[in-house]
Amino acid sequence: MTEKNLKTLFEDTLKDIYFAEKAITKALPKMAKAAQSEELGDAFRTHLEQTQGHVQRLEQIFGLIGKKATAKTCDAIKGIIKEGDEIAKEYGRSKALDAGLLAAAQAVEHYEISRYGTLKTWATELGMPEASRLLDQTLGEEKTTDMLLTKLAKSSVNLAAEAL
Amino acid sequence: MTEKNLKTLFEDTLKDIYFAEKAITKALPKMAKAAQSEELGDAFRTHLEQTQGHVQRLEQIFGLIGKKATAKTCDAIKGIIKEGDEIAKEYGRSKALDAGLLAAAQAVEHYEISRYGTLKTWATELGMPEASRLLDQTLGEEKTTDMLLTKLAKSSVNLAAEAL
Repeated sequence: MTEKNLKTLFEDTLKDIYFAEKAITKALPKMAKAAQSEELGDAFRTHLEQTQGHVQRLEQIFGLIGKKATAKTCDAIKGIIKEGDEIAKEYGRSKALDAGLLAAAQAVEHYEISRYGTLKTWATELGMPEASRLLDQTLGEEKTTDMLLTKLAKSSVNLAAEAL
Repeated sequence: MTEKNLKTLFEDTLKDIYFAEKAITKALPKMAKAAQSEELGDAFRTHLEQTQGHVQRLEQIFGLIGKKATAKTCDAIKGIIKEGDEIAKEYGRSKALDAGLLAAAQAVEHYEISRYGTLKTWATELGMPEASRLLDQTLGEEKTTDMLLTKLAKSSVNLAAEAL
């Protein structure tokens, strides 16, 4: 068994978020299709393109540490996505659907924000400025997406409240 | 079947975070015991007390909407906690353990921050200022805990890096 240290922890967590990003690229088209407002559908589609870029950045980082890009099942993202699927199913005909989809998407973003924040700190400490820069770039994009979703959440919740 | 709307979405999400907070009160003592540094152990113990308060606040909110406090399985928190357990097991003898525990704890905090942010917005829109105030109080505490964990993460990562 390999000795466990900060390097292996970095690598394990990289595999976790690699799995998560790939799972998100599969979930987003479904969420975009389910969304009632065009604006929310567009936001999910734009974020899909970004997410594909995040996958590529992670592959670059695997390259920097001389490892093959490998995904390791991330139970957290599986759980978060499953909750989103349930909302889409249960609220499919309700005016509160978009509010629910937005809540699910924000849970995804927050998971990623926490993971990228951690990975960036570790990369810096491990003396990997290029990896740190790439992780910071993705972190910034996730934060921007979360802010955009917060804005959309305010209008979606108004619509849902009007339907009460 | 009850008609689905913003009110039922609020209630469903309340049940989700109620399950999550209860699961966290079970996970924190284990994390405090596993922690290598006393400072981190103390932080987990302090957060456990806070979390018990969050459970009570949620029970108050269930009371405000005239419903019995009920938990609904939250797959997201189950996944996040499971990942933390795995870290504790795999890194139990490593100097990187605390860094791993902190990463898990920050993923928990971020999940809660996203859920409480959403619930607070919905409570306001549903004309429930008292619920909104209670949710905002918890949200503030989760954000403060996340900042404290970020600070601790910086020192734990230094320790882990020294051991390389």
